[in-house]
Amino acid sequence: MAGKRALIIGSSGGIGGALVDALDASGDFERIYAGSRQPPGRARNSIYPLTIDILDESIMAAAAAEISREGLLDLVIVASGLLHRDAAIRPEKSFRQIDAASLTELLAVNSIGPALAAKHFLPLLAVDRRAVIAFLSARVGSIGDNRLGGWHGYRASKAALNALVRCFSIELVRSNPEAIAVALHPGTVDTRLSAPFQARLRPGSLFSARESAAHLLAVIGQLSPAESGGLFGWDGRRIPY
Amino acid sequence: MAGKRALIIGSSGGIGGALVDALDASGDFERIYAGSRQPPGRARNSIYPLTIDILDESIMAAAAAEISREGLLDLVIVASGLLHRDAAIRPEKSFRQIDAASLTELLAVNSIGPALAAKHFLPLLAVDRRAVIAFLSARVGSIGDNRLGGWHGYRASKAALNALVRCFSIELVRSNPEAIAVALHPGTVDTRLSAPFQARLRPGSLFSARESAAHLLAVIGQLSPAESGGLFGWDGRRIPY
Repeated sequence: MAGKRALIIGSSGGIGGALVDALDASGDFERIYAGSRQPPGRARNSIYPLTIDILDESIMAAAAAEISREGLLDLVIVASGLLHRDAAIRPEKSFRQIDAASLTELLAVNSIGPALAAKHFLPLLAVDRRAVIAFLSARVGSIGDNRLGGWHGYRASKAALNALVRCFSIELVRSNPEAIAVALHPGTVDTRLSAPFQARLRPGSLFSARESAAHLLAVIGQLSPAESGGLFGWDGRRIPY
Repeated sequence: MAGKRALIIGSSGGIGGALVDALDASGDFERIYAGSRQPPGRARNSIYPLTIDILDESIMAAAAAEISREGLLDLVIVASGLLHRDAAIRPEKSFRQIDAASLTELLAVNSIGPALAAKHFLPLLAVDRRAVIAFLSARVGSIGDNRLGGWHGYRASKAALNALVRCFSIELVRSNPEAIAVALHPGTVDTRLSAPFQARLRPGSLFSARESAAHLLAVIGQLSPAESGGLFGWDGRRIPY
């Protein structure tokens, strides 16, 4: 059934790019907006590149205006995220390594940016049929599931995101009982984000971006409105807040 | 049993000030450091004013050095927090009101500041006996308990704080099995923070700062190490993350 429309934010990232490709290959979508800070110049198949920066509201307002001229969206996925950057941002092993600038940037990219994306793109979700907005979160953002400690800034930023997603779910259902907002844990995926942290993994627990995209789209396809607001793993299982 | 030592951060606030007074009146403490950005000049009874700004690490490092010259702490309470400020920061009623500057400031005061306070004052907790660090959080920071939506920034900032507290609890127990880190919901307390939001309350559900301090100290006194890392209400009941 063609004719659906999707927006992927963070399409230059490993998972975001794979999500765009998987949606395109599915044949279900007549238009896939691929949003990133520096998008490629040309459209390809059903993929339409769009400049989106989750920390720049004027850019997002312009993108939202452009999308809305063509119609509403069935699916929005916010796939941007930050865990480390050079020597400047590294996951903390101890509270002694907490750094104000790192926390500020992690919260900006992982919490504030997705909140601003919701502000601009939630109004574009279809209201007369099933519509989903999904945010890439992380199991380590689960407070209840935290047994090891560490990674303070990343954990806090994803917990904040999970709180925001729950807020969005409550608002969405008021205008569309079939609308779903959800936070997703993609597992550990072979991308730049996880590259420094792959050594400790059990064999078989590192997914390719393509596998991850398939997992996430399967979960998104199966979610019911009653599960809106939750945090779910790549295997469809609910993760406690 | 005199001889204990406490630090209250945010002692110029309604709850923080009442906590200082209650600890002083208890007679259990030989020293109560009352930290605020602009402390009064003179000591009173066992209360020793100290300049502390949770967003200024050099000030906190100096305060920690001063405290540590006298000994370690049995109790630290981080009682600072931000919900609204003039017209600039107002709790959101809808995702459409999300504002980057407001989110940034809420996360700075309610999440980053307490994280920095932990960085500087966790090392001052006693390691040879029961010791507690408590952070004023809020029930609305519970993701699972969120039924009404709204207040996006405040909720997200307190969820982030709850995630940090859980991290601290895991680290603390490694050096002291009797150490407890906990997030506390004080209820709605008659302070500047809650003043614009008291109209909707059920009768009897607004506490004075003095009542609130008594509640919080009772909960702190009863917590067991197995409960470390949790979020607890003023009545001692656990609140889901």
